[in-house]
Amino acid sequence: MKKIAVFGSGSWGTAISLLLVRAGHKVSLIGIFSDEIELMKRKKENIQYLPGCFLPDEITPTTDLKEIDAEAVFVSVPSHAVRESARLIKPYLRPGCIMINTAKGLEENTGLRLSQVLEEELPGHPIAVLSGPSHAEEVGRDVVTAVAVAAKDIKVAEAVQDLIMTSKFRVYTNLDMIGVEMGGSLKNIVALCTGILDGMNPKDNTKAALMTRGLAEMTRLGVAMGGQPETFYGLAGIGDLIVTCTSLHSRNLRAGRALGAGKPLDEVLREVGMVVEGVRATKVAFELSKKYGISMPITEQAYKVLFEGLSPSEALENLMMRGKKHETEDMGILGR
Amino acid sequence: MKKIAVFGSGSWGTAISLLLVRAGHKVSLIGIFSDEIELMKRKKENIQYLPGCFLPDEITPTTDLKEIDAEAVFVSVPSHAVRESARLIKPYLRPGCIMINTAKGLEENTGLRLSQVLEEELPGHPIAVLSGPSHAEEVGRDVVTAVAVAAKDIKVAEAVQDLIMTSKFRVYTNLDMIGVEMGGSLKNIVALCTGILDGMNPKDNTKAALMTRGLAEMTRLGVAMGGQPETFYGLAGIGDLIVTCTSLHSRNLRAGRALGAGKPLDEVLREVGMVVEGVRATKVAFELSKKYGISMPITEQAYKVLFEGLSPSEALENLMMRGKKHETEDMGILGR
Repeated sequence: MKKIAVFGSGSWGTAISLLLVRAGHKVSLIGIFSDEIELMKRKKENIQYLPGCFLPDEITPTTDLKEIDAEAVFVSVPSHAVRESARLIKPYLRPGCIMINTAKGLEENTGLRLSQVLEEELPGHPIAVLSGPSHAEEVGRDVVTAVAVAAKDIKVAEAVQDLIMTSKFRVYTNLDMIGVEMGGSLKNIVALCTGILDGMNPKDNTKAALMTRGLAEMTRLGVAMGGQPETFYGLAGIGDLIVTCTSLHSRNLRAGRALGAGKPLDEVLREVGMVVEGVRATKVAFELSKKYGISMPITEQAYKVLFEGLSPSEALENLMMRGKKHETEDMGILGR
Repeated sequence: MKKIAVFGSGSWGTAISLLLVRAGHKVSLIGIFSDEIELMKRKKENIQYLPGCFLPDEITPTTDLKEIDAEAVFVSVPSHAVRESARLIKPYLRPGCIMINTAKGLEENTGLRLSQVLEEELPGHPIAVLSGPSHAEEVGRDVVTAVAVAAKDIKVAEAVQDLIMTSKFRVYTNLDMIGVEMGGSLKNIVALCTGILDGMNPKDNTKAALMTRGLAEMTRLGVAMGGQPETFYGLAGIGDLIVTCTSLHSRNLRAGRALGAGKPLDEVLREVGMVVEGVRATKVAFELSKKYGISMPITEQAYKVLFEGLSPSEALENLMMRGKKHETEDMGILGR
């Protein structure tokens, strides 16, 4: 039994805490809002973000930052809060403890991956990332799930695997942090787009084509940035893409559907109520595609729909009007 | 305008005929049952297999095998009927006309791909295969769809692309016939398995993991047989896998769900009423995996459920109980 800290008391932080207890550990679940934490302690449940899951005594919800002193720390906050969170917890960290990021996104303005943000803010700490098809709602209920954990050093990835793997939560190690993080971030764009398509009028053939070509452009950008193509065809790529584009638990999908049905962006974001990572990711990926000179037609159309007022049906038409193609020719680096 | 023949008057043969008319051609839609064909002529609709789609005058339903004399012939019959069909139509074929197979499967006993069957039976004819996420029900209604057409000679693939591509039906050419055909055949096994999972109790995380690991083992076998990994990450691989594992139009998914809910195989096959390619494919792929020495844990468990009476929940447990893994290590040839 180890003492582990989870920073961030949203749905995923709570689900990770439950996983850690099932794997035999003791968890400090740290949040910053004392009312939420007090409610969680009293109800033994995270009513707001993960209702229906009983929190056992091995989980201590707390606002006390000193509880960050643990053998490993999971950072489970939205992508835009990672840098600020790292600064906040830094004084309390045990020297050299492993930091595991579980958010999926890229930092706005810098375009950095979140592990890079942690590296900048917390030098000397080994960094790992956990990603894959893992809706918190199902992990909370101990549904069979498989994820990837990536780190630069295989020993770090294996340490996280040892920490959190159970008979229901299968962890695959991976050395390709770039691929794992880019897969997790970029799939939200495709999910938003499939949601828009669903909102217009759901069509299975079109949706599958969009997801397939979406994966192709995710892979092109990820590989240009130094990722491995295989990663995009694994759990953190296609696996996460599938669950995000098909599950009703997906906030990005739900937001896309509302957009496709004609609602304006600000109204959609207000209604979903939680962070929709895909909106931010579209902006960052659009800039990265220009920086790396990578063709990303789906991301480009999503950008125009989100930020330039293009209608979804015009965007779909733009995607279809491209010339005759050989299947791999516009897969860039993947082409043979 | 060209004269094209479609052999096989099921749902896909009828949808292909509609596509060809939209692309400006004249079609003989050839079936072997005169009552079905007469009904189709009278009703201007394929009530049995593609209800709701009006058949225009440019489509002539017929049982006259002499109508096979055309510039190109689409063969749209179930996989087990391809060899017999080739023998039947051979005497009537125009010398050197292109043959396009649209069935997805492998020949039982020989394990041959269907293009190989056509090559054996119809030497001297250029052979192409059409595959991808394309449910006939949606193609019939002119829903936006993208597919791959593969041939050994790019000119043949391009000729088919020219023949059938419209603004709504996007055709990508591909030279990897092995990959395209193996993708189309093996995905039915994974669809059957996700159906079984759905039937037990639908879980999005588990389903995405199963599809991802399913794609990995499809790719392993396909690459061992000479296919290109990229093909499995394109329309004929992951694209078709997605649509088959998520669309209610999918017979393999529906059959799997009934199995997962506890119905015996023979009853399920009777209820679905049309051919369930995944059952046959499981048997053939299981044999191929042994022949090529490829680990295919999902196919193996499917085989045991279908033919050896293993319960679906035991099969899922068997899949989860494997040891700790690095993500790419058991991807065989794909591993680095």
